Amino acid sequence: MRSHYCGDINKSHLGQEVTLVGWVNRSRDLGGVVFLDLRDREGLVQVVYDPDLKDVFDIACTLRSEFCVQVKGIVHARPDSQVNSQMKTGEIEILGKQLTVINASAPLPLSMDNYQNNSEEQRLKYRYLDLRRPEMAERIMFRAKVTSSVRRFLDSNGFLDIETPILTKATPEGARDYLVPSRTYKGQFFALPQSPQLFKQLLMMSGFDRYYQIVKCFRDEDLRADRQPEFTQIDIETSFMSSEQVMEKTEQMMRGLFQDLLNVDLGEFPRMSYAEAMKRYGSDKPDLRNPLELVDIADLVKDVEFAVFNGPANDVEGRVAALRIPTGASLSRKQIDDYTKYAGIYGAKGLAWMKINDLAAGMDGIQSPVLKFLNEPIVNDIISRTGAQTGDIILFGADKANVVAEAMGALRLKAGEDFKLLEGQWRPMWVVDFPMFEKINGGFHAVHHPFTAPRGISAEQLAADPGVAISDAYDMVLNGCELGGGSVRIHNAEMQSTVFDILGIEAEEANEKFGFLLEALRYGTPPHAGLAFGLDRIIMLMTGASSIRDVMAFPKTTTAACPLTNAPGFANPVQLAELGIAVVEKVKTEE
Amino acid sequence: MRSHYCGDINKSHLGQEVTLVGWVNRSRDLGGVVFLDLRDREGLVQVVYDPDLKDVFDIACTLRSEFCVQVKGIVHARPDSQVNSQMKTGEIEILGKQLTVINASAPLPLSMDNYQNNSEEQRLKYRYLDLRRPEMAERIMFRAKVTSSVRRFLDSNGFLDIETPILTKATPEGARDYLVPSRTYKGQFFALPQSPQLFKQLLMMSGFDRYYQIVKCFRDEDLRADRQPEFTQIDIETSFMSSEQVMEKTEQMMRGLFQDLLNVDLGEFPRMSYAEAMKRYGSDKPDLRNPLELVDIADLVKDVEFAVFNGPANDVEGRVAALRIPTGASLSRKQIDDYTKYAGIYGAKGLAWMKINDLAAGMDGIQSPVLKFLNEPIVNDIISRTGAQTGDIILFGADKANVVAEAMGALRLKAGEDFKLLEGQWRPMWVVDFPMFEKINGGFHAVHHPFTAPRGISAEQLAADPGVAISDAYDMVLNGCELGGGSVRIHNAEMQSTVFDILGIEAEEANEKFGFLLEALRYGTPPHAGLAFGLDRIIMLMTGASSIRDVMAFPKTTTAACPLTNAPGFANPVQLAELGIAVVEKVKTEE
Repeated sequence: MRSHYCGDINKSHLGQEVTLVGWVNRSRDLGGVVFLDLRDREGLVQVVYDPDLKDVFDIACTLRSEFCVQVKGIVHARPDSQVNSQMKTGEIEILGKQLTVINASAPLPLSMDNYQNNSEEQRLKYRYLDLRRPEMAERIMFRAKVTSSVRRFLDSNGFLDIETPILTKATPEGARDYLVPSRTYKGQFFALPQSPQLFKQLLMMSGFDRYYQIVKCFRDEDLRADRQPEFTQIDIETSFMSSEQVMEKTEQMMRGLFQDLLNVDLGEFPRMSYAEAMKRYGSDKPDLRNPLELVDIADLVKDVEFAVFNGPANDVEGRVAALRIPTGASLSRKQIDDYTKYAGIYGAKGLAWMKINDLAAGMDGIQSPVLKFLNEPIVNDIISRTGAQTGDIILFGADKANVVAEAMGALRLKAGEDFKLLEGQWRPMWVVDFPMFEKINGGFHAVHHPFTAPRGISAEQLAADPGVAISDAYDMVLNGCELGGGSVRIHNAEMQSTVFDILGIEAEEANEKFGFLLEALRYGTPPHAGLAFGLDRIIMLMTGASSIRDVMAFPKTTTAACPLTNAPGFANPVQLAELGIAVVEKVKTEE
Repeated sequence: MRSHYCGDINKSHLGQEVTLVGWVNRSRDLGGVVFLDLRDREGLVQVVYDPDLKDVFDIACTLRSEFCVQVKGIVHARPDSQVNSQMKTGEIEILGKQLTVINASAPLPLSMDNYQNNSEEQRLKYRYLDLRRPEMAERIMFRAKVTSSVRRFLDSNGFLDIETPILTKATPEGARDYLVPSRTYKGQFFALPQSPQLFKQLLMMSGFDRYYQIVKCFRDEDLRADRQPEFTQIDIETSFMSSEQVMEKTEQMMRGLFQDLLNVDLGEFPRMSYAEAMKRYGSDKPDLRNPLELVDIADLVKDVEFAVFNGPANDVEGRVAALRIPTGASLSRKQIDDYTKYAGIYGAKGLAWMKINDLAAGMDGIQSPVLKFLNEPIVNDIISRTGAQTGDIILFGADKANVVAEAMGALRLKAGEDFKLLEGQWRPMWVVDFPMFEKINGGFHAVHHPFTAPRGISAEQLAADPGVAISDAYDMVLNGCELGGGSVRIHNAEMQSTVFDILGIEAEEANEKFGFLLEALRYGTPPHAGLAFGLDRIIMLMTGASSIRDVMAFPKTTTAACPLTNAPGFANPVQLAELGIAVVEKVKTEE
């Protein structure tokens, strides 16, 4: 029905007759000539109908937005004065010779031009219309290009695309599982996978050596802007490769992706230990575009007569850190109060600060509510260590180390945005050398997951002092977002049992949940390592979208509903009886 | 850890030192020399350890099956007498210089050599070991090659890989849905998709023009050998393409697949109408390798004094068909009884037959329990129409047309196998011109699905006589298996409502289930058409596997359980409470 896509017509087609199909993006009668902007997935082209061809012109006059039409016409060059350099097809127009309305459109239930006026709910209910907007369509098409590029890279590097089950057993990621009642085994349930973690490890045990899958994963969690009940991972696992080799290979993949699709050279990704990232940026996923850094000053304030500082400074779990914001002395009292509130969200109990109004004026040039606790040598040391200049402000965080990191890390990001300090467009990195465990309420928890191998120690050494063990794990971070993370996995049963012990997973529970994995580890399991990328987040970053909803064709609302299909819905009582379950509570939560 | 895959070593590596990792496939001490067959996913290679290197030799002597080891050694040519032409690496062997046991293996819980002795349950419980068998591993690797080839074809033809939801609303395919309880909307459920049918149609309404997805689909049906609760479709949809164009494009894809991966030229696929297929083969998915054909003889037996024949022969819904089996006169009474029983499975109430013992002997050469009802001219007409020769048998089916087609179609297949009549290895075809509806218990049912467009008639014409309408649908058939099927879809609301009416779907029900589709049809929906292939079945055919379980990495049993992970399992009562559901019946069905 077509000879070309609309968006593909250009000067090389001058004089040719073309047949196009698409949607009326806009149609205007200007001085007795109808100008039709015809749209398909590849772009817009202008079609002109003049009254000489009366029958055709009359049809053109009836066109309204979003009619689906077929156009035949001759490609002409636009007069110089009408060339539109903003438009891919802006040098030409089609002189319309025929026009067929394939399917009319009723007036639209949402605005295509001023889409900002459409509520999120409307956009999702009429998703098929919202996706007609070029901005949305381009993101979905870009996504297809990304997956295609990733697949080509992995295929050509010997990775095998292998499917793992969706109906499976509860997985160990710790979030809430979606359950699926079994009909054959009444009273029992499948779980939808939070990731194919165990299956990909089993595939390595089978000897497939290099696996990948672009795969749906599921978490029944309360949603935030960048979370969806179902999301997509680029899931990778390899045998006989070190963490170094996995990082190298996947970095190469990501570099290729940015090169192919955005013409961006990401360069080599710097590596940074978890400890250094927390120290300098207060985050395990630092945004390196932001030049601000935290500076530790506990040693300087150990002896000041100010409990807020000297408490944490003398506490082995405490931390006192300074953050210098260039030109920040311009902040008003109100703005500093706002920063204090913001830090409070992340657990900071207050926010000490120091303005460097005039460096040359010595202590007279310094303004700070805590100045009375600090003497000149300390102030000078702080200024010198932070590199503060006249006109800067220094913010202080003093608390447990994790609170300082979180609050000062958040302030660092906020100040970077507020003062427009971000440098460079793309700043990838690897964060490595994570601790194996973190202590929460006196118990150890896995920082990655319970299958992550420690780096360079035996099971006995790990058991002896789990708190200091470093894992052989790695996270790829871009512009402060974690794109993906992975690790070398444990490949022998003794180490795996030791980790379960440390995590307080009883032998019986371990056996019930992961017995098949422990069993599988007994039969010549190869060393293996892998990684999973969050595809939705990668696309979101690459397209500059503000939500992962905007890079998925059919996302759900923040209450995990689909206004388009009205899912979820009530079930047929007969089917519930077949499944051996009953609804005990019917509450329709308001959105 | 490796320089090469085991299976890749050949004479071009002679004299080189190589480092290999893999599993001990077999290890034998033959006359003081250890011969180790080392296996990885690419194949086997023979490594030889002799006692000169005592330390290494001693390790080699400890090897047992399925140990994971690293080998360093020099590639040597095998002596001529030891060249193994059955083996990819049979011209060389590795002279082992180093040997590291990476991970030992406990004695295996199932046999790798005599895998026929392993029960299906054992094979699934230790799937990771069963998948180490080269036969199984090769199928899974072949599958990855198929999906890669399909994606390359579709990507390069402008098809966009777009993901559709897994958590969605009950879909219209008619099989039982898997349900997923919603936590936010207690008492309500998502359904897992039986196909992305409606979403792919919505994507066409959005203007994406060409869509594909290799996607998991779900049906909670009682399982047979070639069914699994989750299976994979190559799902395709296009806009502005006719059924002809869709067939041409997908036929090209399938031809490319067979050419690339099996080096087989499928040639152009013949087309056959549903009516002709039923008439000649008693099947809507004829196996064209089988030369046998049904021959209609109702006109010949209209007036015989045998109610079994003359009843159906004079019934507008009846049919009398003959099936000639060359050399079939050799069948014993017992064998004919078995055929009769077999036909009975498909609803035939008996099986009349006629042996042509000696064509030259006239009626004396004919042996048949129904001979008394037939006179010589009728017998001669039957012989001439079926082309029967001396030594053949003719089987008769007389009943309602659908019973005759099913029973005689089944006999045709059985006889084709029994008498080894199959010709050619690959016989693809298209079946087209299906009826829109079939009448079951007085009501119309969609032969494809309710979104299939009729061919060349208006909504009024369709409503006037639904029983005769032909759909614009097509099935791709290979060797008697349906590889995939599709249709042109309805693209206007009036036609869609008419079809819902004919199917007896009340306006309210239609609105509740498909309201969003009917609404979407109002806004300039393009003409669209598509197709879905069953990936598992394609792989099964291409690899010669006897079950789709053998081409899936982690399939379920016929009772939809996973002996490996023990899924499904009991749920945490807290989680059930959060979901607002309760288990009302706990029955552990025996397998």
